[in-house]
Amino acid sequence: MAGEFDLIARYFRPLAGPVGLGLADDAACLQPEAGQDLIVTKDMLVEGVHFFGDELAASIARKCLAVNLSDLAAKGATPLYYWLALSLPKGKSGDWLAGFSMGLREEQTLHGLYLAGGDTTASPGGLVISITAMGSVPSGTMIRRDGALPGDAIYVTGTLGDASLGLKCLEGDLAMAPDLVDRYHHPQPRVGFGQAARGLVTAGADVSDGLLADLAHICSASGVGANILQAALPLSSSAKAAVTEDLSLWPSIYAGGDDYELLLTVPEESSGALEQAAAESGVSVSRIGVVDSTTGIRLVDPDGQLLQTKHSGFQHF
Amino acid sequence: MAGEFDLIARYFRPLAGPVGLGLADDAACLQPEAGQDLIVTKDMLVEGVHFFGDELAASIARKCLAVNLSDLAAKGATPLYYWLALSLPKGKSGDWLAGFSMGLREEQTLHGLYLAGGDTTASPGGLVISITAMGSVPSGTMIRRDGALPGDAIYVTGTLGDASLGLKCLEGDLAMAPDLVDRYHHPQPRVGFGQAARGLVTAGADVSDGLLADLAHICSASGVGANILQAALPLSSSAKAAVTEDLSLWPSIYAGGDDYELLLTVPEESSGALEQAAAESGVSVSRIGVVDSTTGIRLVDPDGQLLQTKHSGFQHF
Repeated sequence: MAGEFDLIARYFRPLAGPVGLGLADDAACLQPEAGQDLIVTKDMLVEGVHFFGDELAASIARKCLAVNLSDLAAKGATPLYYWLALSLPKGKSGDWLAGFSMGLREEQTLHGLYLAGGDTTASPGGLVISITAMGSVPSGTMIRRDGALPGDAIYVTGTLGDASLGLKCLEGDLAMAPDLVDRYHHPQPRVGFGQAARGLVTAGADVSDGLLADLAHICSASGVGANILQAALPLSSSAKAAVTEDLSLWPSIYAGGDDYELLLTVPEESSGALEQAAAESGVSVSRIGVVDSTTGIRLVDPDGQLLQTKHSGFQHF
Repeated sequence: MAGEFDLIARYFRPLAGPVGLGLADDAACLQPEAGQDLIVTKDMLVEGVHFFGDELAASIARKCLAVNLSDLAAKGATPLYYWLALSLPKGKSGDWLAGFSMGLREEQTLHGLYLAGGDTTASPGGLVISITAMGSVPSGTMIRRDGALPGDAIYVTGTLGDASLGLKCLEGDLAMAPDLVDRYHHPQPRVGFGQAARGLVTAGADVSDGLLADLAHICSASGVGANILQAALPLSSSAKAAVTEDLSLWPSIYAGGDDYELLLTVPEESSGALEQAAAESGVSVSRIGVVDSTTGIRLVDPDGQLLQTKHSGFQHF
């Protein structure tokens, strides 16, 4: 197999932007633009934890970049650069890397960012991928987690639970539904809408650990609570069919994780503008509840009864 | 075991600076200083590749941060922030994390940078650690790899080969020498001297893959070659004893890797200032050769003969 430097030259240098210095130096050199804050996020994806490992290399690549882009989207940031560290098992060489770099190229082209550096090492175990992504916002305008106020409407983009149900399909616990599986493999980070929402919202996060868990993060950081209407949660037709058939699948909707939708709190007077911004971005948004001064999260079923929710999001440990 | 958020709160939040927003948001928010370029590097360390895994948790932590700091040092940058992604096997929990975070604290305090964010995941295999480090230099002054000019003197800091020989001690291939083993476990990034060298050098890199390999990177990027005198290579007394006893250990000196010393090319007129800057930084420097317009690297033994050097640095693949 080719050496590390050949491998970088062949598969990764074509993805690099000018700040990466052709990936030929020890570090990247950025000239920050005046009046902009830099937003930095870092997510690690591990074979056997975040993906199976036998997915298409391009799909793994796209997902790794997409989950980082989703964090930038939740902060309202415009993506700029990313850094990639890759720990590669023996089996994953030439063809696999060609597919992987093709997936990165698709995702970075879609969202207008470039590779700026990173590291490639061997792995005695499974594949491990760490991406650091950087974006920018006009100074002081990052969407934070800690600004939600009582009375704010709570909005979520897209539909919830599809990826979690898709994972159940792959694990053989649910009849195969290709659209759900596709949502598991290919998150769609809401990058454009995140930027449009900046200035209209009081707080935001992406739904990666599950709706209730990520809402709890916002509420806890903001010192507030929330009331959520189960009937208002946006479901795809496949997810709707699944939970209608088997009510015990509901926790996949509100606690399943891997949705990579945006969860936003919006003052009443901005809700019209937010809905319009969503329409202009081609993203559906649903109003699912309201921020409350009483801490805790209450999920209310269509009969007005509080649902017992022991499922509060994915926990690694 | 505690959940991911408890773990972050307990072991990592105390390491965070203000830009990390208490590690309670999805991303860090930086306000770049005007007139400064940002320098970003990312290294991944993998159990069974870069360390054994049974080292002290604090030593693993210090090494991971140190190798990234060494990249910043080689670019002349002042360290600012770092991001940490950790894939943790089951066995590494409370006590281990306490030691690991203590090691990070020691290293970050020594070099004046702060944790700004990251990610913590489970690992079905070994421990994997990815760090992204950021520093700054006055705009346009980063030490690059591609500026070496024929006639420049070649300098290296400290001593070479100790870490590589220390690894041989740990592997049972060399009589135990605690000072060599310590060099393997605890790289000393030349952060202060790197900043002092900025403006005096034409090119620089840190010696991580081995002297000849890293010099080859500089020469290749700069379109030049180099002549190196074996007799001028700086050796610790333990390394000197080892290679005197067994001449076949010489490649550990010039191709062993893991030195984390700085390799710098310096115009003749700046060599005095560089030596003075080194003395003021408390770092020893040795003049080991000269940049040549003929490409390729020639290592010359004390009899004036060219050494055959098939060893050209660590290769992962």
